[in-house]
Amino acid sequence: MKLGLIGLGKMGFNIGAQMLEKNHEVVATDVNEEAVRDFEKEGGKGTGSYQELVNSLEKPRVIWMMVPAGEITDQVIEELSPLLDEGDILIDGGNSNYKKTLANHEKLSTKGIQFFDVGTSGGTSGARHGACFMVGGDKETFETIEPLFRDLAVEDGYLYTGKGGSGHFLKMVHNGIEYGMMAAIGEGFELLEKSPFDYDYEDVSKVWNHGSVIRGWLMELMQDAFHKDANLDEIRGIMNSSGEGKWTVETALDFETPAPVIALSLMMRYRSQENDTFTGKVVSALRHEFGGHATEKK
Amino acid sequence: MKLGLIGLGKMGFNIGAQMLEKNHEVVATDVNEEAVRDFEKEGGKGTGSYQELVNSLEKPRVIWMMVPAGEITDQVIEELSPLLDEGDILIDGGNSNYKKTLANHEKLSTKGIQFFDVGTSGGTSGARHGACFMVGGDKETFETIEPLFRDLAVEDGYLYTGKGGSGHFLKMVHNGIEYGMMAAIGEGFELLEKSPFDYDYEDVSKVWNHGSVIRGWLMELMQDAFHKDANLDEIRGIMNSSGEGKWTVETALDFETPAPVIALSLMMRYRSQENDTFTGKVVSALRHEFGGHATEKK
Amino acid sequence: MKLGLIGLGKMGFNIGAQMLEKNHEVVATDVNEEAVRDFEKEGGKGTGSYQELVNSLEKPRVIWMMVPAGEITDQVIEELSPLLDEGDILIDGGNSNYKKTLANHEKLSTKGIQFFDVGTSGGTSGARHGACFMVGGDKETFETIEPLFRDLAVEDGYLYTGKGGSGHFLKMVHNGIEYGMMAAIGEGFELLEKSPFDYDYEDVSKVWNHGSVIRGWLMELMQDAFHKDANLDEIRGIMNSSGEGKWTVETALDFETPAPVIALSLMMRYRSQENDTFTGKVVSALRHEFGGHATEKK
Amino acid sequence: MKLGLIGLGKMGFNIGAQMLEKNHEVVATDVNEEAVRDFEKEGGKGTGSYQELVNSLEKPRVIWMMVPAGEITDQVIEELSPLLDEGDILIDGGNSNYKKTLANHEKLSTKGIQFFDVGTSGGTSGARHGACFMVGGDKETFETIEPLFRDLAVEDGYLYTGKGGSGHFLKMVHNGIEYGMMAAIGEGFELLEKSPFDYDYEDVSKVWNHGSVIRGWLMELMQDAFHKDANLDEIRGIMNSSGEGKWTVETALDFETPAPVIALSLMMRYRSQENDTFTGKVVSALRHEFGGHATEKK
Repeated sequence: MKLGLIGLGKMGFNIGAQMLEKNHEVVATDVNEEAVRDFEKEGGKGTGSYQELVNSLEKPRVIWMMVPAGEITDQVIEELSPLLDEGDILIDGGNSNYKKTLANHEKLSTKGIQFFDVGTSGGTSGARHGACFMVGGDKETFETIEPLFRDLAVEDGYLYTGKGGSGHFLKMVHNGIEYGMMAAIGEGFELLEKSPFDYDYEDVSKVWNHGSVIRGWLMELMQDAFHKDANLDEIRGIMNSSGEGKWTVETALDFETPAPVIALSLMMRYRSQENDTFTGKVVSALRHEFGGHATEKK
Repeated sequence: MKLGLIGLGKMGFNIGAQMLEKNHEVVATDVNEEAVRDFEKEGGKGTGSYQELVNSLEKPRVIWMMVPAGEITDQVIEELSPLLDEGDILIDGGNSNYKKTLANHEKLSTKGIQFFDVGTSGGTSGARHGACFMVGGDKETFETIEPLFRDLAVEDGYLYTGKGGSGHFLKMVHNGIEYGMMAAIGEGFELLEKSPFDYDYEDVSKVWNHGSVIRGWLMELMQDAFHKDANLDEIRGIMNSSGEGKWTVETALDFETPAPVIALSLMMRYRSQENDTFTGKVVSALRHEFGGHATEKK
Repeated sequence: MKLGLIGLGKMGFNIGAQMLEKNHEVVATDVNEEAVRDFEKEGGKGTGSYQELVNSLEKPRVIWMMVPAGEITDQVIEELSPLLDEGDILIDGGNSNYKKTLANHEKLSTKGIQFFDVGTSGGTSGARHGACFMVGGDKETFETIEPLFRDLAVEDGYLYTGKGGSGHFLKMVHNGIEYGMMAAIGEGFELLEKSPFDYDYEDVSKVWNHGSVIRGWLMELMQDAFHKDANLDEIRGIMNSSGEGKWTVETALDFETPAPVIALSLMMRYRSQENDTFTGKVVSALRHEFGGHATEKK
Repeated sequence: MKLGLIGLGKMGFNIGAQMLEKNHEVVATDVNEEAVRDFEKEGGKGTGSYQELVNSLEKPRVIWMMVPAGEITDQVIEELSPLLDEGDILIDGGNSNYKKTLANHEKLSTKGIQFFDVGTSGGTSGARHGACFMVGGDKETFETIEPLFRDLAVEDGYLYTGKGGSGHFLKMVHNGIEYGMMAAIGEGFELLEKSPFDYDYEDVSKVWNHGSVIRGWLMELMQDAFHKDANLDEIRGIMNSSGEGKWTVETALDFETPAPVIALSLMMRYRSQENDTFTGKVVSALRHEFGGHATEKK
């Protein structure tokens, strides 16, 4: 299949490289010209403008966007959509908020553009060697691009999830679960670290990956991480986040649904980004006021 | 009433001073000799040994212990109880774990000693000027010492709570609630502090104390704290704890009862005592492994 | 002062009655005509239309809205604002989301209308006998209506909180704290209820209100509630909510701030609204799959 | 290897069957005589008393206990240990609390009995076809029984974890992580179930198992569960627990370590076991008292 690719960052470059490897013809662009040149070295075709990219494809065109969710995605859609024709297919492979995606479906459908929201999981290595895709959009049109997903996914690694928005929603929830799982694993290792025992964490991750109930890819990654840095001495425990955990919790609030584990996994990330907290100051001040407990001075 | 007092720390000294003020005759002791001398200056009688203290009281003796919960309480009971006679009354006014208290009741009842577990709330100022007491033990014997509690409590500020252990249990739960309330207040002020608005926290505490739903003593103390240090700039947000919150959560686990708010208020205290966490390192390492997300180096 | 009042529900009727008692002249309206007639019996003036209400006031008019947050507030503002003149004062005494309030400030300021966002606390009895107000809006204009707040608040029970939005934001956070406090109190009593002791909850609430650290209005209300129904046998534990707790948690997410206690107090309310959960089914199914643990059948 | 096996329940029977399959000679006993007869049908040797079982083994004897943690384990050790000789090897393959295990190590080491605490994961199918073992005890002696673990574990599925107690501690933490992971998965599916989309959960589990970040055995089990009951209509969401999650949280408290995700996963299990809560009654009563909010009557 010949298709366009917008975005050659960590995820986009890898998925583009996989497309090439699976014999797709890819015309790609990125604001970072060096990435475009690197992609040409992989055998792709680079291009400088959306117009050029659109011109180089035949109708119905297939264009895969792999750019950061939010403003950049909005901007690409705004600039690109006027150049597209009815029946063209636009894929948002980024982690867009499903509410935005619903709005994009509505906006683009009025122009006759077939929009697909594709949640992509598997990290950068998945993008390169076989990922997991959750695809929302028109079912009939999906069948015309299904071969692309079959090629880029690991075996059984793609799913048509239903109407527009369902792909990004499913990916959001996937990431929410991921937040919770990662926090559970983290809390577990912290207990090991504080225990009176002397565990080799790499060995622990390895044995937990062989026959235990909690075996899975995250535990395999733990093994890799501990292999490189046995006690994680080299890194700090500041846990950043990129939006999907937050959206999952917001969705739980919208649905008036308890999701305490996911919510706490997110809030502990926020906590890790602070050195000191006003909450802590307030509680310390109160303890001092009523009990004469010492406060720690700055 | 003539009674003995063991322990002249922050709480013990203040309650002793209040006993004197209310015309009780108090024979007191403490390992800290300076505290004993200070207490004599208040009009009390100091003594150096438990034997002396016991000898100076008439049967049935009334002795009030106001020492730290745990080992020190155990030790005092161990040393003191052989010196007591059947019918003597021993009051544990500290924050002992109710399970220990149940054991103490059993142990002391075999010797015929009337043991009372007294949860004391109101902080150091309460101890000095009128506190809140929750008293567990034998009902009939309680009536003989009730005048003491009537004197030392604020009006309506004491309750006979039932059989042995019920006083300390009730105080434990009181403190668990206190943990949750303090955390809620802290989280609220943290949101104010991060808001786009420019609140005067002392004013906020004051208005919240006048007519609002959340008015109460803790909010009055907030007002005092902000009066002294408008933005709590001088203190660090490290929240220590002295056991009762932990016991409350342990009790919730024993009863297989959810107590998420109290549990989280405790766990956030623990979190505040750490600079960095192994949980955070694990999650950061995982994010790096699968997504190539940057980790912050040490 | 002569002023208009829109909304004669539980809060509006009570605050209107208090206005009358404090010798303000009140022209009121409500969609519920019976409420209007009742208000006339209290000595107020009823009116059927916004136009009539506006006509009966002198410029600069002062109109207090006390209607449910959200669509109804929006609708009232939409219908009312064209009837107002530059310099007129419109007070939103409801619990509007502060983001909406910021938008209303902007919209109304373009018409020269002085808008105030007033968070009101103290419940229905506060509205009737003296409430707590947090007022955001133009400082200079505030001074012209300050006497009204002085009359309707308990002593020291109102605060000018700063620019537009700051009143409703502060009320939102107040309610978030309230959620956390109430949950902490609830968890505490649940532990008492499951304990091996036999507490009289009314007595417990009473003693906790006299000298303890957690004394406050909520505990007084507990005492009232247990006085009416000693073990709360008559009511079910379904905890509804009306928005402000949710907004507080959303705000915490917006600020990337941990607020675990408030978040959990909200999520446990949601949990109480469900009989059974899909989460529970999933976990039970998993336990059955790996461990052969029995699942409970429907 | 010839060895004894005490306990032929779900786990014990399966591990015994695997021992036989791997050509070990197994003498087994259980209070349930039918289980013993069934085990004989599998090719094992049944026996009625510990004395007989001990007599049928050569020194140093190897005996594997696979009985429920707690009182039953204690009782077996109490009855069995007098029959053992110095140098005999006793394996506790159950999920004993590591604190009890530490005590057992101490007690048995005074008799010269080599005690091993073995955490076993992988569920009943793992016990039958290859499990995951975490083994604490004397390192040198471990080497003499290592072939047994090599046979019964999946490849790379056993680990000598260090001194006594470390095996059960590690298994406890493993289960704590498992609780958190399962809760995260449950919360995720609950959000799917409440979403406006129409997911096939079996398909979702399947795609999440192929290339996604959260792939692993638990997700495979989800797929199996949804294959049998597409919407889990047949089961109720009551989540029981058997101790290890509780111990993990207690350990977190002992270490003064935050473990909010594991703690909440446990507390939501407790919540699922209640139809109504006293917490809920208290909060509802409070809302009624201050706001006149309706309570739902019984």
